[in-house]
Amino acid sequence: MDATHPADQSEHPGRIMSGEMAEQPEVLRRILDRGAPRIHETAALIAARRPRFVLLTARGTSDNAALYAKYLLEIRLGLPCGLTSMSTTTAYGARPDLRDVLVITVSQSGGSPDLVDSTRAARAAGAITLAVTNNPDSPLAAVSEFHIDILAGPEKALPATKTYTASLLALYLLIEGLRGADGAAARALPELAERILDRQDEVRRLASRYRFAERMVITSRGYGYPTAKEAALKLMETSYIPALSYSGADLLHGPLAMVDNISPVIAVVTDGKGGEALQPVLDRLRGRGADLVVIGPSRQVEAASAGFTLPTQGVPEELQPVLEILPLQLLAYEVTIARGQDPDAPRALAKVTETR
Amino acid sequence: MDATHPADQSEHPGRIMSGEMAEQPEVLRRILDRGAPRIHETAALIAARRPRFVLLTARGTSDNAALYAKYLLEIRLGLPCGLTSMSTTTAYGARPDLRDVLVITVSQSGGSPDLVDSTRAARAAGAITLAVTNNPDSPLAAVSEFHIDILAGPEKALPATKTYTASLLALYLLIEGLRGADGAAARALPELAERILDRQDEVRRLASRYRFAERMVITSRGYGYPTAKEAALKLMETSYIPALSYSGADLLHGPLAMVDNISPVIAVVTDGKGGEALQPVLDRLRGRGADLVVIGPSRQVEAASAGFTLPTQGVPEELQPVLEILPLQLLAYEVTIARGQDPDAPRALAKVTETR
Repeated sequence: MDATHPADQSEHPGRIMSGEMAEQPEVLRRILDRGAPRIHETAALIAARRPRFVLLTARGTSDNAALYAKYLLEIRLGLPCGLTSMSTTTAYGARPDLRDVLVITVSQSGGSPDLVDSTRAARAAGAITLAVTNNPDSPLAAVSEFHIDILAGPEKALPATKTYTASLLALYLLIEGLRGADGAAARALPELAERILDRQDEVRRLASRYRFAERMVITSRGYGYPTAKEAALKLMETSYIPALSYSGADLLHGPLAMVDNISPVIAVVTDGKGGEALQPVLDRLRGRGADLVVIGPSRQVEAASAGFTLPTQGVPEELQPVLEILPLQLLAYEVTIARGQDPDAPRALAKVTETR
Repeated sequence: MDATHPADQSEHPGRIMSGEMAEQPEVLRRILDRGAPRIHETAALIAARRPRFVLLTARGTSDNAALYAKYLLEIRLGLPCGLTSMSTTTAYGARPDLRDVLVITVSQSGGSPDLVDSTRAARAAGAITLAVTNNPDSPLAAVSEFHIDILAGPEKALPATKTYTASLLALYLLIEGLRGADGAAARALPELAERILDRQDEVRRLASRYRFAERMVITSRGYGYPTAKEAALKLMETSYIPALSYSGADLLHGPLAMVDNISPVIAVVTDGKGGEALQPVLDRLRGRGADLVVIGPSRQVEAASAGFTLPTQGVPEELQPVLEILPLQLLAYEVTIARGQDPDAPRALAKVTETR
């Protein structure tokens, strides 16, 4: 069967996305078995250059992976970080002094011209450049001094899934490598990912809740915040529901006015300090009668309107984002199917977006 | 008359917000006349310390002002910048090495405990700390090495308006000062702001378009991107319409699937390189039959479904954000009134948000 045959696609809506979601445990295993040694070598070479500041460059799903890396770099390495405002380089020709600066560009395809241009400019300005891509032969890998291959295999679905979790794990191993650690805690991920993906029926029941939702709010704090942003993007790309993501603290600074019993809220509650910092927001949402669905520990799911209990045995907080996104990818898929749409056929997307 | 008397408020919905929007030309004049000398002195002291990186810390409306400063710092000063992920310090206790780093914290009240804690921690970690607030007696000003007063006078409306434009202008003058310039171009702003605010009837007609909108997308690129984010926040805080903001490039990487003829789009088209970089996005939106409203130059308004022509005579691109937001503040106000709600009474907001 040809996965891209149009007739076949319409008979089995979402089969491309579904197949790629299912590959994730295998991709995580591949990175741990085959990718990790090379990532550690790259990390050692970069650590020897002693970067003082890190800039992360990416768009779309990869931008959410970059935000995850920002939390790791700041918390575990104590390196100040920024996310690049790409147009400063590509539209305005800014040429900042980037000595001692590590510029990490994350891109599934490695083919977007603005990412290539901005990375080339960063290297010319003195930066240590690292590309994290799914294509070692890409223009982005070619212009970067260092390259990490996320080994996810070809991604054909327009909503990225396996390249997101693969990027998270590759970035985790890189950043552990920068601090001289081996990232062994990640070895628990593939099996837990399998267990989560086996619970698709449970997610399907949750999805029925959003059959007629006109908007959604997704919130989290700390390590789970990139998960909230990526879940919102997945929901919008597939189901077209306007899904707004906020850090719990920002939600209190304004958009909470929009949350009431007609705006369902999904909270990503990481088991650790991020989840603790989110507690006042959860209490406030419950107090307002919000329809609150929790992805997180069982005690938090039980206190909410509904949810998905995330198995995280032995997984430290900083690795939970690799697992948290899985039920939310499934949710985006199931909500889209429930609304009679095809997750494989978003209306306006091309796989390699040629922004300049 | 007591502006905060409840009965009076309900008889004149939105009068507090309306009054503060109208004060903006006067506030801009006050900053130029009384604030600028002090801002330039502060800039000279900071420039002498030769910061190599800048971190910007803020929430809500102030975070959008901080993003504007990020563009200025990167493009005009060539300093690499990042926006702080505050929970890395306040929830996770990260203590990055901040020697040579300028940390700018922007806060209207200067009272939010997490901003105070994170600024105190940054100073202890070796950073040059600067508070930009509307309250020189605030805890934030007290813990910071330097302080800039935005001189906007007390802000009572929950949706911030005058403190946003005041923060933009103060940050512009600061950053011009860091590069040894006087920011004289800003002297054109107060009169142009008056002319824009005088066109409230025109905005009211535009607002009728959104009487029944269930969602909105606001896009821009470059210097106008913070305007798009702030406009979305204003619309959500006042009218509760889910308003999604995207840089034009990010819009093409996914959420465009959501934009069709039932999702109205507002594009903030800065007259300059940002507007030029947005052109392919505008063309694509028109091609999809989107309801496109433009805030920008007349030729762009004429090519759109409707719009508001922004007078920018003699104002360089980097200063246009101070003007661009004004019709969008008016729009948030008018849409809210048109929907029978009170812009002065958002459902869930407190003026000083005590996130920790």
